[in-house]
Amino acid sequence: MRTWLFAKGHGTGNDFVLIKDRSGLTDPTREDVRFLCDRRRGIGGDGLLRAVRAERMSEWTGPGDIWFMDYRNADGSVAAMCGNGLRVFVRWLVDEGLAGGDVIEVATRAGLRRVVVHPDGRLSIHMGTPSWDPIPYTVRTRDAEWSGHPVVADNPHCVVRVADPDSLAAIDLFHPVGLDDTRFPDGANVEFVTRLRPGHIRLRVFERGVGETLSCGTGTVAAACDARQEWGGDDWRVEVPGGVLKVAFTEDGVATLTGPAVIVARGEVSLPDA
Amino acid sequence: MRTWLFAKGHGTGNDFVLIKDRSGLTDPTREDVRFLCDRRRGIGGDGLLRAVRAERMSEWTGPGDIWFMDYRNADGSVAAMCGNGLRVFVRWLVDEGLAGGDVIEVATRAGLRRVVVHPDGRLSIHMGTPSWDPIPYTVRTRDAEWSGHPVVADNPHCVVRVADPDSLAAIDLFHPVGLDDTRFPDGANVEFVTRLRPGHIRLRVFERGVGETLSCGTGTVAAACDARQEWGGDDWRVEVPGGVLKVAFTEDGVATLTGPAVIVARGEVSLPDA
Repeated sequence: MRTWLFAKGHGTGNDFVLIKDRSGLTDPTREDVRFLCDRRRGIGGDGLLRAVRAERMSEWTGPGDIWFMDYRNADGSVAAMCGNGLRVFVRWLVDEGLAGGDVIEVATRAGLRRVVVHPDGRLSIHMGTPSWDPIPYTVRTRDAEWSGHPVVADNPHCVVRVADPDSLAAIDLFHPVGLDDTRFPDGANVEFVTRLRPGHIRLRVFERGVGETLSCGTGTVAAACDARQEWGGDDWRVEVPGGVLKVAFTEDGVATLTGPAVIVARGEVSLPDA
Repeated sequence: MRTWLFAKGHGTGNDFVLIKDRSGLTDPTREDVRFLCDRRRGIGGDGLLRAVRAERMSEWTGPGDIWFMDYRNADGSVAAMCGNGLRVFVRWLVDEGLAGGDVIEVATRAGLRRVVVHPDGRLSIHMGTPSWDPIPYTVRTRDAEWSGHPVVADNPHCVVRVADPDSLAAIDLFHPVGLDDTRFPDGANVEFVTRLRPGHIRLRVFERGVGETLSCGTGTVAAACDARQEWGGDDWRVEVPGGVLKVAFTEDGVATLTGPAVIVARGEVSLPDA
């Protein structure tokens, strides 16, 4: 049996197990990740966030004296970035005294990210420039087909506009959402979005490798990007099932995501022998 | 913000948050229980197990120098007993050095329970004599109606026999299971059971206040009681979605439940202010 220190936290209900591995000596296996994220037999989370000094990550070529966020989905697969995860990650670095200041730089598989720590506890993340694909794409839920637009916002997404809140609430996301693999060879998260009023949308998200979740940071940015494309406007309030996020775009389309993050628990976990 | 020490463990996938409150000074509110059992915003569990010295519980009139297991469902409601929970509770008492010996007595709302700690780590619980009701009762799932038998095994249950494993697997337990409240004024857990061979059944369970779970200890006893009634035999191997349990009956119908239990994590949790 192996014993690891861990923390658990969430951003708008998108929750993570966090582990510190400064020297990069504890690379979790796929089974380790699945165990830690198992909600009944392990700790439980939508993903695992491992903090490693960037200089210890062979895949990282930027500055070495910052933290690298090694993000894994609950199924053990690797993901490039996670907007909610990055807020939780930085909240935890700050709470643990591992990083300080108003702006914290974090290395991710999607590049260097700057995170602004606000006095009210919220955090803002520069999310880069999402790219919106004008060619529509068909998504299948259990009972229906939908037309959406692919958006790359660090991770691949497909954003589907839905007529009204009732239609949004009625979509069956318990069963897997179907995507053709020609256009999304690595799969994609699918966001179903309805506009409540100008500058204000509501969404539900189905994450690849996870299922429906209460929130998805890059999906929120993808949805706001699609809404900006359709309806115009640079500032978006986005209701997700787990809370409220804000997305602001510069004139050039660079997105900033702002929202809360909280660390709920800290402790040690006993992993089964590998 | 309040900080409590906690542990998390499971028995065949039925998982619990555990807290020690020797003097009974930290009576959790319904909101506290819901928070601790919230799988995304809290720790996550099917229920909360609070350890209090029995003498500190006004409702307890038995010996005072043992531990009382104060069991709450994830929705904050109080429950009398939980067979999986009691194994996890005793595993934790033993691991923490709070109790010792081969046989440990625990006070519960269903009375005094003796738990046998086996050398292989499994635990056996004397579950009393379940009472089987010969008058059938109708249960409704989303797509179908079923005829079952009420069984009282500490908690109220209704056991439904299903023809074969495929039929069992196909039952929709994502949507709530319907019970008339005349016969079950406090609700009931519903077990759907199929016999694989003599002395060997498989079940799925829908727990009141929770939904489908991977395992239910009293439900396992109720199902074995119904199987004994229908097919005869005193020793039952019971497959639940989260593992394997054993139920043995004496000639008089007194049941003993045997199964594994494991503590996965320990730590401290930050609760929002009440």
